Amino acid sequence: MDKKLLEQDEQFMTKALEEARIAFEKDEVPIGAVIVQNNTIISRGHNLTEQLKDVTAHAEMIALTSAFNYIGAKYLPDATLYVTIEPCNMCAGALYWSKIGRIVFGAKDIKHGYSSSYSKSPFHPKTRLSSGILEEQCSLLMKTFFENKRK
Amino acid sequence: MDKKLLEQDEQFMTKALEEARIAFEKDEVPIGAVIVQNNTIISRGHNLTEQLKDVTAHAEMIALTSAFNYIGAKYLPDATLYVTIEPCNMCAGALYWSKIGRIVFGAKDIKHGYSSSYSKSPFHPKTRLSSGILEEQCSLLMKTFFENKRK
Repeated sequence: MDKKLLEQDEQFMTKALEEARIAFEKDEVPIGAVIVQNNTIISRGHNLTEQLKDVTAHAEMIALTSAFNYIGAKYLPDATLYVTIEPCNMCAGALYWSKIGRIVFGAKDIKHGYSSSYSKSPFHPKTRLSSGILEEQCSLLMKTFFENKRK
Repeated sequence: MDKKLLEQDEQFMTKALEEARIAFEKDEVPIGAVIVQNNTIISRGHNLTEQLKDVTAHAEMIALTSAFNYIGAKYLPDATLYVTIEPCNMCAGALYWSKIGRIVFGAKDIKHGYSSSYSKSPFHPKTRLSSGILEEQCSLLMKTFFENKRK
């Protein structure tokens, strides 16, 4: 992978991790996301399913709706979503509709990640995909959260 | 199928069709939904992706968030969603998370319906599923909409 792109990906994934930590502090499953266009963060989101009592309030959904509002259009072909954990089926479906240019996720989600459910790629054919960026940090936050829950 | 249940399903699908017709009048892809609990409609939704410039604003998503707000809880095990057209992958994923008791849809969506993408049922194991209720009316509304678009 291109070194400059990797640095940029890590920089923005760090911002997604900041969102995930905000969720953690709120006792929400710690997943965070940012959407970037022209090297600028245009929206942020963190999981708020408990606070909003709404299981659709995932980091990606919040960031997507915020990005549509920001750009005033319903497609995001020039944007990149950074999300700390592999999107679930719902979020993968939303990302499909958004025609987002690129998706970068940190750690895989064996239980709820889209890749365990779909028989083919759920994304738009033009959407590029990367994963494993700051994987350990993304994963550790989730692990710590669920370990604390079991105590 | 039990005759009384079929009558009830048709009654509520008629209400979902009313929502779909509102979408049609707004020049939105005409899909409508209602969520019913204890024989009462607790939320309604119709597709608003154009008006909101938000591809996540599907009838089902709007009805779900409204239902969570109404009951003040994030699961809907005692509720039934009626939706005129087979849910897409995003909405199927949202319905999974909601643990909704039952899903009833009208007409299949060959192109975007969840059943063409998932390798197994995307819903919660306890969610019951029915389809084909007022199928022709649900389908005709979509057909008319897209035929008008092509004129």
